[in-house]
Amino acid sequence: MTLPRTIPVGLIGAGRIGTSHAEIIAHRVPGASLVAVADPRPGVADALGSSLGARGVLAPGDIFEADDVEAVVIAASSEAHTELVIAAARAGKAVFCEKPMALTLSDADRAIAAARDADVALQVGFNRRFAPGFEAAHAAIVAGSVGTPHLMRSVTRDPGLANPAAVPPWTVFTQTLIHDFDALLWLNPGAQPAEVYATADALVAPEFKQAGLLDTAVVVVTFDNGARGVAEASFSATYGYDVRAEVFGSGGMVTAGTTARTSMTLHDGSGRHVETARQDVDLFRDAYTGEFVEFTDAVREGRAPSVTGVDAKRALSIALACIESVRANAPVKVTA
Amino acid sequence: MTLPRTIPVGLIGAGRIGTSHAEIIAHRVPGASLVAVADPRPGVADALGSSLGARGVLAPGDIFEADDVEAVVIAASSEAHTELVIAAARAGKAVFCEKPMALTLSDADRAIAAARDADVALQVGFNRRFAPGFEAAHAAIVAGSVGTPHLMRSVTRDPGLANPAAVPPWTVFTQTLIHDFDALLWLNPGAQPAEVYATADALVAPEFKQAGLLDTAVVVVTFDNGARGVAEASFSATYGYDVRAEVFGSGGMVTAGTTARTSMTLHDGSGRHVETARQDVDLFRDAYTGEFVEFTDAVREGRAPSVTGVDAKRALSIALACIESVRANAPVKVTA
Amino acid sequence: MTLPRTIPVGLIGAGRIGTSHAEIIAHRVPGASLVAVADPRPGVADALGSSLGARGVLAPGDIFEADDVEAVVIAASSEAHTELVIAAARAGKAVFCEKPMALTLSDADRAIAAARDADVALQVGFNRRFAPGFEAAHAAIVAGSVGTPHLMRSVTRDPGLANPAAVPPWTVFTQTLIHDFDALLWLNPGAQPAEVYATADALVAPEFKQAGLLDTAVVVVTFDNGARGVAEASFSATYGYDVRAEVFGSGGMVTAGTTARTSMTLHDGSGRHVETARQDVDLFRDAYTGEFVEFTDAVREGRAPSVTGVDAKRALSIALACIESVRANAPVKVTA
Amino acid sequence: MTLPRTIPVGLIGAGRIGTSHAEIIAHRVPGASLVAVADPRPGVADALGSSLGARGVLAPGDIFEADDVEAVVIAASSEAHTELVIAAARAGKAVFCEKPMALTLSDADRAIAAARDADVALQVGFNRRFAPGFEAAHAAIVAGSVGTPHLMRSVTRDPGLANPAAVPPWTVFTQTLIHDFDALLWLNPGAQPAEVYATADALVAPEFKQAGLLDTAVVVVTFDNGARGVAEASFSATYGYDVRAEVFGSGGMVTAGTTARTSMTLHDGSGRHVETARQDVDLFRDAYTGEFVEFTDAVREGRAPSVTGVDAKRALSIALACIESVRANAPVKVTA
Repeated sequence: MTLPRTIPVGLIGAGRIGTSHAEIIAHRVPGASLVAVADPRPGVADALGSSLGARGVLAPGDIFEADDVEAVVIAASSEAHTELVIAAARAGKAVFCEKPMALTLSDADRAIAAARDADVALQVGFNRRFAPGFEAAHAAIVAGSVGTPHLMRSVTRDPGLANPAAVPPWTVFTQTLIHDFDALLWLNPGAQPAEVYATADALVAPEFKQAGLLDTAVVVVTFDNGARGVAEASFSATYGYDVRAEVFGSGGMVTAGTTARTSMTLHDGSGRHVETARQDVDLFRDAYTGEFVEFTDAVREGRAPSVTGVDAKRALSIALACIESVRANAPVKVTA
Repeated sequence: MTLPRTIPVGLIGAGRIGTSHAEIIAHRVPGASLVAVADPRPGVADALGSSLGARGVLAPGDIFEADDVEAVVIAASSEAHTELVIAAARAGKAVFCEKPMALTLSDADRAIAAARDADVALQVGFNRRFAPGFEAAHAAIVAGSVGTPHLMRSVTRDPGLANPAAVPPWTVFTQTLIHDFDALLWLNPGAQPAEVYATADALVAPEFKQAGLLDTAVVVVTFDNGARGVAEASFSATYGYDVRAEVFGSGGMVTAGTTARTSMTLHDGSGRHVETARQDVDLFRDAYTGEFVEFTDAVREGRAPSVTGVDAKRALSIALACIESVRANAPVKVTA
Repeated sequence: MTLPRTIPVGLIGAGRIGTSHAEIIAHRVPGASLVAVADPRPGVADALGSSLGARGVLAPGDIFEADDVEAVVIAASSEAHTELVIAAARAGKAVFCEKPMALTLSDADRAIAAARDADVALQVGFNRRFAPGFEAAHAAIVAGSVGTPHLMRSVTRDPGLANPAAVPPWTVFTQTLIHDFDALLWLNPGAQPAEVYATADALVAPEFKQAGLLDTAVVVVTFDNGARGVAEASFSATYGYDVRAEVFGSGGMVTAGTTARTSMTLHDGSGRHVETARQDVDLFRDAYTGEFVEFTDAVREGRAPSVTGVDAKRALSIALACIESVRANAPVKVTA
Repeated sequence: MTLPRTIPVGLIGAGRIGTSHAEIIAHRVPGASLVAVADPRPGVADALGSSLGARGVLAPGDIFEADDVEAVVIAASSEAHTELVIAAARAGKAVFCEKPMALTLSDADRAIAAARDADVALQVGFNRRFAPGFEAAHAAIVAGSVGTPHLMRSVTRDPGLANPAAVPPWTVFTQTLIHDFDALLWLNPGAQPAEVYATADALVAPEFKQAGLLDTAVVVVTFDNGARGVAEASFSATYGYDVRAEVFGSGGMVTAGTTARTSMTLHDGSGRHVETARQDVDLFRDAYTGEFVEFTDAVREGRAPSVTGVDAKRALSIALACIESVRANAPVKVTA
């Protein structure tokens, strides 16, 4: 028995999710080592890197050019993702890109092509695919336990909207519900989205509606196998982080996700109580670990990851149809 | 302390739900006595009546004209409901009408007017309002525990489609989802439905699609307070009878409904198992009892019931908008 | 189809549980009618009776001698139960007796003999046998789903101790845990209790310990098939009424009972919350109804009820062994 | 921000639990590195070590004498634990010892003294203390949410008895229920165990009873604050690995533990189903990680771990009292 090769990883972006990813890669992923962190803010990459045994740099290019980096994790700001994916791929690095990989279909195509041309792995950060409850639901569906999906649901509710002014328009579709669109696609294997109806509003922070911020949305996706999938998002759940899915079909139903933080219950004079998950990094720690295990395994084995740029593009197609649907106040066809 | 007056009740219709109602009225509602049952099929009313201490008759008119009947429960076939309500009201009887009370807004208006003109109580059979979990959810919403509703959901799934050929077109909206529309209205107090998008299909029994049978539907209702309510129905849940609701708002979330038949769990070599509710009369026994307690209390006290013909019309408005939405494949305004 | 014969019932004792029983018999049990109520406190029986269409009397004898009473429900004070059972049986009445039917084995034998000699039904108020979750657990055990029981548990926790001074010594065993002893016997079909270890204390109201009040107890029953059953009681659950059971065996485990009052959950800034059942008449309404349905069915059909005086004696044997065990601080054999 | 010092760890014992510990230390504990593995079976330590970047040795002494090992994890066979703890401590290594640390009180004292004399950390493997649900329950108890404990319960059920012939007598107390005894002590802070009643049997593998194997046991521990704690174990749960606790007190109740493997539920024609946890390494992965994080943090910070040799001795005192209680068939005092 020989030691599996460790994949040296460089991280682009040391913000909230980048920091979480760095810690998980450094500490919880057997086959990965974190060697470099890039962040344009002076000192930030150094600080995170030094706490984890990695060097800090300012420019992503320093990571792309580094010989000791084999794979790159992109957790920079959303609008920079596509170009970073392309640059990383051209430098011959395997790429893990946080969602959204792209904000237009042509950008998605360019990213996919860059990875394909460079023959490098390209994985996107659809974390639910690695959450144990969702994995078990998917396995049940693939095993035929629910038959053909008829009615589906995927929900994302965040614990709050820290800085509404900083949220770009359509974020609810391109960055939040993109997770749910991928979940619906993944949990309805082989089906294609045909039509989308979306409705959205600014109910949490109505004063930002004029600026284009929509914080509450409901989407109905009609698939070519007849299944209807409902995706729903809110930016402000008082009780924490709420991510759930339900798939009802000709043979039964699966549900995945829970709001409970642990198995503990408390009974007292006011009833029975359970603590709720307050953070994505709390609810999804195992999922984040799982996605980096998959990524480094794929790199090591020279194969495509289980969730790729093509999946990012498919989910994006639905998000873009949602924007069009809201603008037209009508259902619109999905173009892939 | 004096004995509350018992309300003598006549039942129109001794089919499956009529039989269940008869037994509940006869045995579980303190302030009611079942005195007569009408059913056009020879012997059917006699059989049910004799088992419960009531007389059987063939024609509804025999009940309307009976001096010993004070209140009437209408559980005949759906298309006859409106005229039966009107005839009962004109005969001076208090009326409990199973849903749907009417299939057009003008019929709804006529039924409401007949009851108002005759000054008799008119209650409709929206059973969830009396189901303990739904009552508790409503109480929490009224108490402000979830703040302003933002995202709502109501689900109805039946255990199967016995005779698809006998199901009239649009039943999924006018007879099944009408419960969910009432639930959404009731759980969003004070709000008005503004717009509806509906999509429906024949996924359970596709061979009946040509005949107009739709067995699977999803509806999005946009309310004037910004809340989006999703209603969803299927005619074929393999696991039984599934009725649930969820209301998410600025202050929190309530859920109501469960698929569990009892509190029992079984753990064995294949995991943990819970029996599911297989029938509406199983899942809703307490609710059916509660609605008849409310009805006879209202009659005795000379007041309006808590759910009336006006509520039936409001839910119908949404159902009719759904039909229009499916035909147009577009969201449509709700007209009240 | 003919109307099943209604059994006219007389009630002895119009206290808290007697009042609940009266209402259930009058309103929820199809085959029963309440015709008379006896209570020695002036006016009490009249008041309860008049609200339910029954006459009130002062002395139990007035009910035993009444020709229009066929069955008697005994809900008087515990120490009077045995003599009332005997008197009722001798008067030819079928008897439903609240637990405890007797406080000594010889009294139990006398009550059983009186019913047998008079050839009348004798049922005892072990309500869990009719609670839906417990019924489902029992059915699973009888069906072999858990194999041979190895480890069992039955729990009773009451919402509070209203008047500790009025609680007779050993009540925790003879009146509270007697339910759990019957549950353990019922859920371990065919097995005999061999040995009992009991420990008890005054933790809720320690100031009454001197007077003999024990409010907290744990009992281990060793059965002749090897199963160990743990019964546990407290007189003061802040969260309400908590009755649960668990049976673990060679093939699996069943659990029964829940603290949830309804299916409703509330999520808010402090987590996820469920209302708890606060009263036995809340938690056990269906069970109370079910036990009177069984009683009147047995009377009508001229058969023994499913839970009889013999079951009362078996549970009492364990309770008496508990008292001896606490006194000796040692396990003691159970004598039947 | 500087990198926290990594603690180099040597592992003694490469069996089932040793292998799991090695992988967790190597991959999931930020502040630890696995440098050596010892196992007397030829090639076993090499194989495990090489897969994790550590060297393999045959004798524990090779680890105790290694300069590059700062802390030792003992997962050898139970009867060797005490001497290994003492040898490791004398070699100046910090020690993590799987339960049971000792099988006699004097051995426990010797192990504790060795660590104290050498001024090294000594932690024992009471994993529940680091399981999220149990941690939350403990926190609620410490916060006063349940008041003074009155009735406690701790359950351990294993998925099966692979090789009954290899199980030493009294294992159910010294190796299985020792976890539950520690849980009861930990969840009843400040209280001392006063008396123990234990009953045990061979119900899973009765053919091994003669050889002293007891596979099913129930223990009642009476604490000096009046609380009664019930601990219960079985070696054969068909549904997997079942570890739960419940603490009921003057102010409320907490429960911890679940049999569910993930949040997924499946509904189909036979009801609602949940997968159960099949392995301790499945149910307790987070707990195993947590205990090694605590251990290496304590080593790095030069402080005592949160669960020490003294805790091992306290739990052992109860286990030894259980053996005496079974032999005497009587409650016995606990001597600390």
